[in-house]
Amino acid sequence: MQNYCIIMAGGIGSRFWPLSKNDYPKQFIDIFGTGKSFIRATFERFLPVVPAENFIVVTNAAYKSLVLEHIPELKPDQVLCEPMRRNTAPCLAYANYHIQSILPKGEEANIVVSPADHLVTNEGEFQRIITMGFDFVSQQEHQDALLTIGINPSRPETGYGYIEVPQEIIAQGKTSRVVNVANFKEKPNLEKAKEFLAAGNFFWNSGIFIWSLKGIQQAFCNFLPDMVALFDQGRDKFGTEEEQQFINDHFAQCENISIDYGVMERSQSRYTIPADFGWSDIGTWGSFYTHAEHDANGNALLGKIVVNECQNSVVNIEEGTDCIVQGMDHCLVAYRNRSLLVCKLDDEQRIKEWVEELGKK
Amino acid sequence: MQNYCIIMAGGIGSRFWPLSKNDYPKQFIDIFGTGKSFIRATFERFLPVVPAENFIVVTNAAYKSLVLEHIPELKPDQVLCEPMRRNTAPCLAYANYHIQSILPKGEEANIVVSPADHLVTNEGEFQRIITMGFDFVSQQEHQDALLTIGINPSRPETGYGYIEVPQEIIAQGKTSRVVNVANFKEKPNLEKAKEFLAAGNFFWNSGIFIWSLKGIQQAFCNFLPDMVALFDQGRDKFGTEEEQQFINDHFAQCENISIDYGVMERSQSRYTIPADFGWSDIGTWGSFYTHAEHDANGNALLGKIVVNECQNSVVNIEEGTDCIVQGMDHCLVAYRNRSLLVCKLDDEQRIKEWVEELGKK
Repeated sequence: MQNYCIIMAGGIGSRFWPLSKNDYPKQFIDIFGTGKSFIRATFERFLPVVPAENFIVVTNAAYKSLVLEHIPELKPDQVLCEPMRRNTAPCLAYANYHIQSILPKGEEANIVVSPADHLVTNEGEFQRIITMGFDFVSQQEHQDALLTIGINPSRPETGYGYIEVPQEIIAQGKTSRVVNVANFKEKPNLEKAKEFLAAGNFFWNSGIFIWSLKGIQQAFCNFLPDMVALFDQGRDKFGTEEEQQFINDHFAQCENISIDYGVMERSQSRYTIPADFGWSDIGTWGSFYTHAEHDANGNALLGKIVVNECQNSVVNIEEGTDCIVQGMDHCLVAYRNRSLLVCKLDDEQRIKEWVEELGKK
Repeated sequence: MQNYCIIMAGGIGSRFWPLSKNDYPKQFIDIFGTGKSFIRATFERFLPVVPAENFIVVTNAAYKSLVLEHIPELKPDQVLCEPMRRNTAPCLAYANYHIQSILPKGEEANIVVSPADHLVTNEGEFQRIITMGFDFVSQQEHQDALLTIGINPSRPETGYGYIEVPQEIIAQGKTSRVVNVANFKEKPNLEKAKEFLAAGNFFWNSGIFIWSLKGIQQAFCNFLPDMVALFDQGRDKFGTEEEQQFINDHFAQCENISIDYGVMERSQSRYTIPADFGWSDIGTWGSFYTHAEHDANGNALLGKIVVNECQNSVVNIEEGTDCIVQGMDHCLVAYRNRSLLVCKLDDEQRIKEWVEELGKK
């Protein structure tokens, strides 16, 4: 049994402008100043449970060299290039066909799928949970199981989808075992999120999946047969020099659909492991603020910065740049690569709109 | 009669950090984005009344090449280099001895002295006033006259010194003629400044002086004889290759004193021309704000900037840098050369202190 890890790294993330941009998306930035980009940290987090040669990174063709720069342990053919964005189901179909083509005859594979741009603070616990998932899907009777890692919620977050498990299962003890999924819930409003939190049987959907290659391929056949038919046309090309050309010629025809909608919501073999390993998708400056270290006045500071009379603010400045900030309350000051953002933290969801406006100048 | 212009350009100006710094002081910056630095604009403002070859710029040795870069019309020997800062009296003694040494035998000279970093908006009126001053000091009976340009005050400014003229003179009509000076007044508090404004016979001291070379040399002999004795030691070296070495060896011995304290306040031949030509010393970001163009929300913007929900703020960004600013009221955002300042405009007088703090990091 071989363990594989598929890292989905095709995002373009303008929400962290100016740190992330089209030519340098979020997965490649080191927002916390740890010395490791998100994608590097993701790779290292899985490395104790997946050998380096069994990683597959799926990204946009434009980012292939960035991926190899951040993870020099990878060979170029471990980086799969999408010619355009088609959501997570086509991304994973591509990776599945590729893994199938390189898998030694007679071998079976387990796969863990992960976004490239999340934060995990307790890596030991993380690895324990992933191993538990691999063990589960390795069992003969669970080879069709589609397992999602659920996160024990700490607040009524409206930015995440939720996984509902049967109430009676939770009564037996909350975390660290595989349980059935009752429902997937889309991002709730605040009222709903509070209900979920109070009920106790709802978990954040981390977007981390574990399954056997056989299991996920069967699920694609069942729920996305058109996509399977499309990829089957190139069955003899995967793992050869013709793979990229085939993908370039056919990928645009894939339905733009997520693995959640396309497969998970339609499956009867859905499981989750409710877990606690200090997870966040760091999807916004606000969540960066939550997870960053704070000074005595609640400021999250990164860079060479003199701060006076500032509270609850984020100042994130490129190395080699001097910065003085004074008199800011709940503000964001970020500078990277000749781009500067100064705004109210509460208005950060409008960054994308402002960046578009800037593009018109 | 030859007209000379001495531009005093030795300042280091940390008040406009990060636009001005020790290695690039205020006189060399183009804060309004007009395409001309302060020193360039100063040169061009005097050029209709003083021929290019009669300009003398006195600056710190470190800035000589910057001066020649901004005013390529100058020959290198028109830029006099102080080895250290010794205030305006030694600066002008140096320039006077130099001009004396290069003046053709039998010729006489008028001199206008000006700081390098002021703003004038009505250059035609400015040139008319300077010409009036030259005419006045050219007259035989006024060859000992020390003339200061006074500015008709528009507000009770506490950042400038004031020139008091006899009340009865003002009754005859306020501006555009040479009048006697009663007193020089140091920077007043707000109450005093309001009194000055109401009285009508007080004018801002612009720091622009006009006199004959003979007149100012006699005044130095009368009021600063030690300084004259010091410079007299090098009388035969000025205008030769030995001038710089003499200055390097002796300049440190000069008393650190301004021309205002050392000469003007002690003289009996003091005159002023009260004038109106849109003058400001632009000594602070606040005065920059006052004189800059504003958008509909009262913001003074320079650079490629997207602004949302900002009022009465200054955003001044280096060319080639993209900037988004939102939610700021009465704030200052300035970026230059890998240095960023974000603060309340009202607290800008503390910039120097913050820059020192930054230097310790």
